[in-house]
Amino acid sequence: MSKYVIGIDYGTLSGRASLVDAANGRVLASSVYDYPHAVMDTALPCGTPLAPDWALQHPQDYMDVLDHTLPEILKTSGVNPADVIGIGLDVTASTAMPCKKDGTPLCFLPEYENDPHAYVKLWKHHAAQDKASIMTHVALERGEWWLPAYGGKVSSEWSLPKLWQVLDEAPHIYENMDCWVEATDWIVWQLCSVWMQDSCCAGYKCMYDKERGYPSEDYFAALDERLRHVVREKLWAPVVPIGTRVGSLTQEMAARFGLAPGIAIATGGIDAHVAVMAAGITRPGQMLAIIGTSTCHMLLDTKRLPVPGICGSVGDGIIPGFWGYESGQSCVGDHYAWMTSRFVPEDYHKAAREQGMNIHAYLTSLAEKLTPGESGLLALDWWNGNRSILVDVDLTGMLLGMTLQTKPEEIYRALVEATAYGMRTVVENYAAHGACIDEVYALGGISQKNPMVMQIYADVLGVPVRVVDCEQGGALGSAIMGAVAANAYPDFEQAIHAMGAPVLRVYTPREENVSIYNALYAEYKLLHDYFGRGENDVMKRLKAIRAGARR
Amino acid sequence: MSKYVIGIDYGTLSGRASLVDAANGRVLASSVYDYPHAVMDTALPCGTPLAPDWALQHPQDYMDVLDHTLPEILKTSGVNPADVIGIGLDVTASTAMPCKKDGTPLCFLPEYENDPHAYVKLWKHHAAQDKASIMTHVALERGEWWLPAYGGKVSSEWSLPKLWQVLDEAPHIYENMDCWVEATDWIVWQLCSVWMQDSCCAGYKCMYDKERGYPSEDYFAALDERLRHVVREKLWAPVVPIGTRVGSLTQEMAARFGLAPGIAIATGGIDAHVAVMAAGITRPGQMLAIIGTSTCHMLLDTKRLPVPGICGSVGDGIIPGFWGYESGQSCVGDHYAWMTSRFVPEDYHKAAREQGMNIHAYLTSLAEKLTPGESGLLALDWWNGNRSILVDVDLTGMLLGMTLQTKPEEIYRALVEATAYGMRTVVENYAAHGACIDEVYALGGISQKNPMVMQIYADVLGVPVRVVDCEQGGALGSAIMGAVAANAYPDFEQAIHAMGAPVLRVYTPREENVSIYNALYAEYKLLHDYFGRGENDVMKRLKAIRAGARR
Repeated sequence: MSKYVIGIDYGTLSGRASLVDAANGRVLASSVYDYPHAVMDTALPCGTPLAPDWALQHPQDYMDVLDHTLPEILKTSGVNPADVIGIGLDVTASTAMPCKKDGTPLCFLPEYENDPHAYVKLWKHHAAQDKASIMTHVALERGEWWLPAYGGKVSSEWSLPKLWQVLDEAPHIYENMDCWVEATDWIVWQLCSVWMQDSCCAGYKCMYDKERGYPSEDYFAALDERLRHVVREKLWAPVVPIGTRVGSLTQEMAARFGLAPGIAIATGGIDAHVAVMAAGITRPGQMLAIIGTSTCHMLLDTKRLPVPGICGSVGDGIIPGFWGYESGQSCVGDHYAWMTSRFVPEDYHKAAREQGMNIHAYLTSLAEKLTPGESGLLALDWWNGNRSILVDVDLTGMLLGMTLQTKPEEIYRALVEATAYGMRTVVENYAAHGACIDEVYALGGISQKNPMVMQIYADVLGVPVRVVDCEQGGALGSAIMGAVAANAYPDFEQAIHAMGAPVLRVYTPREENVSIYNALYAEYKLLHDYFGRGENDVMKRLKAIRAGARR
Repeated sequence: MSKYVIGIDYGTLSGRASLVDAANGRVLASSVYDYPHAVMDTALPCGTPLAPDWALQHPQDYMDVLDHTLPEILKTSGVNPADVIGIGLDVTASTAMPCKKDGTPLCFLPEYENDPHAYVKLWKHHAAQDKASIMTHVALERGEWWLPAYGGKVSSEWSLPKLWQVLDEAPHIYENMDCWVEATDWIVWQLCSVWMQDSCCAGYKCMYDKERGYPSEDYFAALDERLRHVVREKLWAPVVPIGTRVGSLTQEMAARFGLAPGIAIATGGIDAHVAVMAAGITRPGQMLAIIGTSTCHMLLDTKRLPVPGICGSVGDGIIPGFWGYESGQSCVGDHYAWMTSRFVPEDYHKAAREQGMNIHAYLTSLAEKLTPGESGLLALDWWNGNRSILVDVDLTGMLLGMTLQTKPEEIYRALVEATAYGMRTVVENYAAHGACIDEVYALGGISQKNPMVMQIYADVLGVPVRVVDCEQGGALGSAIMGAVAANAYPDFEQAIHAMGAPVLRVYTPREENVSIYNALYAEYKLLHDYFGRGENDVMKRLKAIRAGARR
């Protein structure tokens, strides 16, 4: 008899639940619900205005997603609720909120409902940038051991800068909260009445280390004496590996959604990270690249490796039992869109319309006729800074090799190639530090839509690129976690092999292209190091001049 | 009683004669006549086909210009032919032909009229590139003293490679010609029955040095033993300073055009070079920049200076009594046009149309609102190689500093600024070798049409830029030569002061911009030297890869 699991993917503006066959990962039904409060970035519902860089959410929206989507997927699929055995979920992170010890968010209490600090601070709440900067500075000064594992910088998108902001700007909220809870963990808490911190959010967004725990009390005290005991006062729940069973669906929740009580509830994770499971990855050497406006890379290894220039390395952070490595490229689809939206001439748009193509497809149709090296162009893909491996937001773009004959499609292809070279620096950096990559798995819009881009990636990287047939990696990965928590499989490896999405298409490196791209990549790397590692800081000096000119 | 002079400017496709008041340079009448044969680059009139890279002219066309324009300007102006006292002229160069010793071009003789080598090889006849390359190579090997004065390279556009091509491919033509004559000197010869070689063409296009003469017989013999005596056999006419009197208008020519016999005929020159006189330049420190698709710089000095990286330094080459220095930028207006023709989006074109502006004017209207440094962009203006001061056609363009917010008008302005930085390297190079420039005079389409560009040049160069009110610098400069040859003035200085064109507008450097551009230029120079002087030859390696990819 078939068994089913539910995976729920909470994005920035909506949540999606999928009902999945636990035997094979097939999605029987999906339902999406938009958050009624969306992102609150100008005012609270009561009208209290918000300062710039604020971005809040309302926790009631997360429950509304469950209320709407769970009954609907049961109904659409016709599955017997008694056959649903597990639930997993993922949320953007760090997206966290202050709660009472019973899990009630402070914003649910009338005395706090007008206070912005009582609400959920969304991942893209950037108003704690000053706190993040001080955290970096103090960690550098103290030589904190964990800083290098996070690319040398604390991000304002992480959990602790936001929590510190609460303490600093709303000490009464800080005092009256019993805990600071990631949205992932809070939803799980609602489902099974148990609060545990998942290793994914704790590791990637809260500097928690599997072996050494959170940063030391001395570090927190060096930031602010009142933070000395922040872990035992506000982050006291145990940290448990992603995807393991936290508890069972409560009677109350089961009744509310039309499910059976006792269903296994898995620890949640972050959207990009749980997609690794959806992609069918189970071992070191297989890198997942989620290629969209930006690119996120995920990699497993059995060992803790000192890889510099990445976003985080976390024990049990992606799949329990492995160290999970995350790195990123901050400008990929955005890179191509910059070109198409601003630098493509009228006659190209006209020709695209006449051929019934969008401008990306039209430019691609011209660019794919070019052979590697034919344009004579080379770009550095730093239009939005460099995340990995230089970790430097002040770097900017560069394009070189133009002649009076250079055409738009040549520049378009050069921008694509630059993002491939950018990924190769990441791959080579992993290899140089002990993690060799022999296959790249690809998810994300560009991987599905643009074969030219994927072939260039395979040719530049020199390894096969396997595009995964999955548009909802978060929901499927969450469902896999639900299945493991429900003991449908003895381990993650078997669950992922059974339920992971199939490969849509494999792009194999073409020998004749690989050798040319090796030569072109050598040129990229030379300029990458020249402009990116301090030999010529012209990009930073131009930014400083620009800042002066705009005052 | 007023006296008049005629200046005739022979371009690539037409000739223009102007009748000018010798007292003040005022143009009373002008007439243009298109060459009936235009440029012959596919076949001769008889049908004989031409190979690629050939570009010929028919000398009869030059006479046709005289037949049509001289009577017309006399008629239009109403000037009494008896009051016309002198004629000067200029032609593109090196544009040369084989003649008999009476001045008859071989192509006028029936036995040669089907032979391409009997015709005029136009400046842009590039089919002697192999000869030019060997000439450079042999000069380098022999350490020829004159090579550095020409930027280290013999151009296929010059006179001797073309003459050598005749010898090599059509020895019977070479044998049967008595002389190899620049079109400038040939037209003068027709007018006054005297052949002299002008110092401008001989110096800039035929390696003639005022003090040391032509290259040595040993050099010519090293190229080809048959060339050992080429100077005394084919280039035997005396070389005389530009603008001095060669002779008087013959009876026959006077009757043919309706002029008085005995009018002074001046030695001719090259179009760009005679424009220095038209611009009113009379002393060292005043550089003329003719700013069009490319830019040509002319400078005078009383001394012979060892300036590297320029196109030529010639005694009496521009104004008798001075050493004349020529340098160039190979990509200026073409640079801006590359952008407007290929990289400006639909909505910009739409907005330009709505405002009744062309796209250059529209982009300029946006770019001129930016302050220096505001875009954060920096370009190297090498889309068409670098003429001065690197003398390297294999360099290519570079643009740096792009972010996802970078707009078309910002790139447009960065390209303009790059051409200004390019000119500053030229100016600083002159200064470093003893020729300080305190004023720049500007001619050419861009100088007249685009105040933003000119203000940027003034701010980047840090000296006033004086735009000269003259659209036909060649014709006016030629007229001035005619006036001096006719003894209307005791010397060139007085003639130029009286007849040179007035300044239309002076662009004065703005202090607040100068300091920012000093900082930006320092960045330009750093990259100029990094990419241009061998530290990173990536541009050349990319070109080599490109050449391989296109095979």
